[in-house]
Amino acid sequence: MERKIGIGIIGFGRIGRLHADNALVSDKVVLKGVSDLFIDQIKGTKYEQAVNLVTDDPYEIINHDEIDAVFICANTDSHVDLITACASAGKHVFCEKPISFNLEETKKALEAVNQSGVKFQVGFNRRFDKHFRKVQETVRKGDIGDPHIIKITSRDPETPPEAYIKRSGGMFMDMTIHDFDMIRYLSGKEVVEVSVKAANLIDPKFGRNDDVDTAIITLTFEDGSLGVIDNSREAAYGYDQRIEVFGSKGVVSANNEQPTNVEISTKESVTVDHPKYFFLERYHDAYVDEMEEFAKAILDDEPLLLTGEDGAKAEQLAKAAKLSRDQNRPVSISELNVTI
Amino acid sequence: MERKIGIGIIGFGRIGRLHADNALVSDKVVLKGVSDLFIDQIKGTKYEQAVNLVTDDPYEIINHDEIDAVFICANTDSHVDLITACASAGKHVFCEKPISFNLEETKKALEAVNQSGVKFQVGFNRRFDKHFRKVQETVRKGDIGDPHIIKITSRDPETPPEAYIKRSGGMFMDMTIHDFDMIRYLSGKEVVEVSVKAANLIDPKFGRNDDVDTAIITLTFEDGSLGVIDNSREAAYGYDQRIEVFGSKGVVSANNEQPTNVEISTKESVTVDHPKYFFLERYHDAYVDEMEEFAKAILDDEPLLLTGEDGAKAEQLAKAAKLSRDQNRPVSISELNVTI
Amino acid sequence: MERKIGIGIIGFGRIGRLHADNALVSDKVVLKGVSDLFIDQIKGTKYEQAVNLVTDDPYEIINHDEIDAVFICANTDSHVDLITACASAGKHVFCEKPISFNLEETKKALEAVNQSGVKFQVGFNRRFDKHFRKVQETVRKGDIGDPHIIKITSRDPETPPEAYIKRSGGMFMDMTIHDFDMIRYLSGKEVVEVSVKAANLIDPKFGRNDDVDTAIITLTFEDGSLGVIDNSREAAYGYDQRIEVFGSKGVVSANNEQPTNVEISTKESVTVDHPKYFFLERYHDAYVDEMEEFAKAILDDEPLLLTGEDGAKAEQLAKAAKLSRDQNRPVSISELNVTI
Amino acid sequence: MERKIGIGIIGFGRIGRLHADNALVSDKVVLKGVSDLFIDQIKGTKYEQAVNLVTDDPYEIINHDEIDAVFICANTDSHVDLITACASAGKHVFCEKPISFNLEETKKALEAVNQSGVKFQVGFNRRFDKHFRKVQETVRKGDIGDPHIIKITSRDPETPPEAYIKRSGGMFMDMTIHDFDMIRYLSGKEVVEVSVKAANLIDPKFGRNDDVDTAIITLTFEDGSLGVIDNSREAAYGYDQRIEVFGSKGVVSANNEQPTNVEISTKESVTVDHPKYFFLERYHDAYVDEMEEFAKAILDDEPLLLTGEDGAKAEQLAKAAKLSRDQNRPVSISELNVTI
Repeated sequence: MERKIGIGIIGFGRIGRLHADNALVSDKVVLKGVSDLFIDQIKGTKYEQAVNLVTDDPYEIINHDEIDAVFICANTDSHVDLITACASAGKHVFCEKPISFNLEETKKALEAVNQSGVKFQVGFNRRFDKHFRKVQETVRKGDIGDPHIIKITSRDPETPPEAYIKRSGGMFMDMTIHDFDMIRYLSGKEVVEVSVKAANLIDPKFGRNDDVDTAIITLTFEDGSLGVIDNSREAAYGYDQRIEVFGSKGVVSANNEQPTNVEISTKESVTVDHPKYFFLERYHDAYVDEMEEFAKAILDDEPLLLTGEDGAKAEQLAKAAKLSRDQNRPVSISELNVTI
Repeated sequence: MERKIGIGIIGFGRIGRLHADNALVSDKVVLKGVSDLFIDQIKGTKYEQAVNLVTDDPYEIINHDEIDAVFICANTDSHVDLITACASAGKHVFCEKPISFNLEETKKALEAVNQSGVKFQVGFNRRFDKHFRKVQETVRKGDIGDPHIIKITSRDPETPPEAYIKRSGGMFMDMTIHDFDMIRYLSGKEVVEVSVKAANLIDPKFGRNDDVDTAIITLTFEDGSLGVIDNSREAAYGYDQRIEVFGSKGVVSANNEQPTNVEISTKESVTVDHPKYFFLERYHDAYVDEMEEFAKAILDDEPLLLTGEDGAKAEQLAKAAKLSRDQNRPVSISELNVTI
Repeated sequence: MERKIGIGIIGFGRIGRLHADNALVSDKVVLKGVSDLFIDQIKGTKYEQAVNLVTDDPYEIINHDEIDAVFICANTDSHVDLITACASAGKHVFCEKPISFNLEETKKALEAVNQSGVKFQVGFNRRFDKHFRKVQETVRKGDIGDPHIIKITSRDPETPPEAYIKRSGGMFMDMTIHDFDMIRYLSGKEVVEVSVKAANLIDPKFGRNDDVDTAIITLTFEDGSLGVIDNSREAAYGYDQRIEVFGSKGVVSANNEQPTNVEISTKESVTVDHPKYFFLERYHDAYVDEMEEFAKAILDDEPLLLTGEDGAKAEQLAKAAKLSRDQNRPVSISELNVTI
Repeated sequence: MERKIGIGIIGFGRIGRLHADNALVSDKVVLKGVSDLFIDQIKGTKYEQAVNLVTDDPYEIINHDEIDAVFICANTDSHVDLITACASAGKHVFCEKPISFNLEETKKALEAVNQSGVKFQVGFNRRFDKHFRKVQETVRKGDIGDPHIIKITSRDPETPPEAYIKRSGGMFMDMTIHDFDMIRYLSGKEVVEVSVKAANLIDPKFGRNDDVDTAIITLTFEDGSLGVIDNSREAAYGYDQRIEVFGSKGVVSANNEQPTNVEISTKESVTVDHPKYFFLERYHDAYVDEMEEFAKAILDDEPLLLTGEDGAKAEQLAKAAKLSRDQNRPVSISELNVTI
């Protein structure tokens, strides 16, 4: 007899729908309810047929008897309240990143969760990517020795609309936050200093919202080893997601993933596939696996692979990056005066 | 409102179970019944819970009202009778390869199917592999000009048990048959001559069953262009599945698929992943897609991508290959005196 | 104090000139003389300045006191006489392939050489290619176990002129002969049977000279293992030279060599370099190394890496291939009734 | 009739010998003299035989009638005096990097050269690497649009001895200086700011000489675009030399070069070659080409591909990097108060 947890999803945009699709075919999760302010976009779909509860009130989800865990995919502004309510209701929480735009708020959410004892996972899906996982395991096993330089290339295939930019929290909080989490995951160490050079090279819509679209972010870890992230909001050739960990005994890297490995050679050219287009294609399996691992940890009452604290640490790095960029100087994490 | 077809599965070994798993998460197919002579191996599993009908009588499947299409995954010896029964009952048929070990029998099955007008797909799953599909499309579009040489490397990671060898119909009918179908798919042309050099190099268990484990098979197409397949029953490094079409304007190839694209470099070595281990890993998505395409053709009443005739043609090439090996000479397909 | 051997070159076409260029910068060889029927094409070049002797009489080269070894790069028809004269004069011989178009003639040349005790190397330059050499060493060390299937892809980037085709001896003697030598080199075993499927698909100029432009050649080695060569006279994308040895413990392969490893990714495509264009580019270093190794063996009086016997064996396979193609059947080497 | 320039080499260590070897087989250069303080290491070698003049007095080289150009490969401390003497004697100069450890001194050398009108090339051999050259040409042609991020990975295979570290001028002046020149070459733009994070992670011998062995160097170009270099003094797997230019329309990259492209797959692993071991192997052809291009520019009286000004600019960046590291802050080039 298989056991499954009942889940509800709050916020039914692109990412909420993605979790719903994965839940529908999961053998660890049963989708019991979905909520969205714009309830009409759920009506008449397969999702309505699949679940008992479709509502525009997130608290109906949180308080539903058959729901063990809540996936929060709504606007960032609503996260902390919803997390706190879940914690009070004894519901486990899966929350998309960032937890909030404000570290104090984020800490409040963590405290609520920790007091209630529910499990709390943040949506850093890339930790579940099979390529990156193998890189991390190779590092952990010591095969490349002590890490000296960790490099992440992370470039989106196209810029978001300006409306999105306005409420994104800025590139570091919206996009680099994934890389901040990845670099902590790969190194197994904490960052003590962040130094940023950033620019607005692609589209003025970033600049006029006090944002950037291109950046080199250098990080110093607690043991003196280094990390570097390069970001762009627009790579013409597709989603560019590569990592490399260089250490005292060697180097391990993960290159991009292509739709196929087909090569075509003619008089004119030798061509191979572009990288998979964007995160939905590239991290399809990682989204499935983050849900499965979350459910498994709940079913077996085991520790999560990543927690709210990881979410808060990544937010902290995003804050430091913003400050470093604004003041054109290296920023020590201790300057932020927030202990997580 | 989504439409789905009801399916039943006859024969619940490894491949029957694989189709069942894919059916359970399909949005075009509902699994309604499964049968196996050894019914006990289904009892108490999630499959029993999922379906209305679990039986040791395949005709219960064939005659069940809610079943529109039957997946025949039982022993090859039973295929023709089951296909004929499905045709009589007006049920669409998906049959694992080969249809039979006897071309006359296979033709009987085709006639039954053609008279009744049901759809009939054979389990050449590799046609649905995304890599090979892109190769085929590249050829079809004319990007590499007229094909001159088509090459297939197809090597299994480990030998089957001797009991399997005995009832396999021989390497050409059991293993190369996939390559025969693939080469017809890639060329879009019929083969007129087969010439084989084969050997028993890996394990005497093949030789003592009048079988081979290693072969080079050269094919001549109707337009004079050439094909070559190399087979081995045991590649120490994993499942080796590569194709290449060389033409007047260029070449297109598909290389193996790895679990990850991670590269590890140390003083000792630079290593990358092995190919995916075997067909379950390598063709996972292709198995899903062959079911979806089959269901889609039924739902939309459209032609299948591959038919019973394709199955029979591949069997014909396997027969010719066996004859070529036995007599150490090129064998013309017309010698076989069977028109398909 | 470095020792060098004095060499002379007979025949100053493309390949003679290539050896001359390599000799001019060699530290084991001094170019002392060159001869060509068309002596005017040497007059006034740097070659005339570099050497003491420029002549239209090859025997002046052969009999020159300061010349220890003769490079025979003249027409195939003249090879046997020149080799015999060199042997009589006690001069070591480097001869371009084939030694002759006639196995009996070739044997005469071998006998002359063997009686005189001079060293005799044939121009199978590919044995000195660093990639192929590493493949061969990997096989010899046993790293991939016993070879089961050896594969060679060998395709030229463009067809030769019809005048060349007429005097080439046919594709097997002119082009495949390199692959026959390579497959013997890689396997370390003798071939006992050849089976060919060939076609004229590229240009009618081959057909009207009773030649082919496309072929699949299957070889059986003395221990029952297999080899397969695929040839084309025109690969639109450049010179395609790949080998693979598949054995009981693994596989080793050498892929094409590109001018650079630069990759360019844009919205339109992801492109890499074509293979190096043709043999002058691809085997540049191998031509240097075959001369160095030849000179070294003479200076140190050590055995050559490949000998006249290797040349004759490859010619034998070319003969068998022609017969197999003409009669559309496998041809046993013993049928040829020539022992080498 | 070919024209050649006469050259002399001052300083006959590893790099002087390398230039001598290339000169001996060049068709644009004749080696006329060599000097070294330790003249005994030249006596009795092929170099002594090859040239008229072997001396321990560099001024004999500079003043020799048949010498048109001088290759300065002696200690950095002696460079400026030797350059100045060459300029006075009307001799063209090829000088290994850096010109000096002191920007004012370097400027003096440039002024002497510019006044006399001789040609002056600095030994940034990597500009002549065929891979990097293709990357640069791709950028220049506009194929990847406007460069936004330029990345260089540059890691040595092993640390130098401590004696070398002491007189190296520090990692930025000794090693990164090549990368500073490369990034200027690739971007075609000047750097306005340098920001460094560096560490001593590999061996305390660096730290005790106030040097580092690991660094991330971020550069801001005059148009706001960014560059990043990562350096290590010890990569266990070999010499790691990769570049990437990411722009508004795409990305172009050059990966490492391997001795062979052979791949070996067994049950245990799939392995490929390490990168070529170190600069002598990796940049062998680039050293040849930098000499040929230098000679060609003199013979044809054409502009050099890189000049003393390029040398000084790279030194300037090394100075800024050292300052940035010492003060842990971004350093503007204008702060250095040296105009080149």
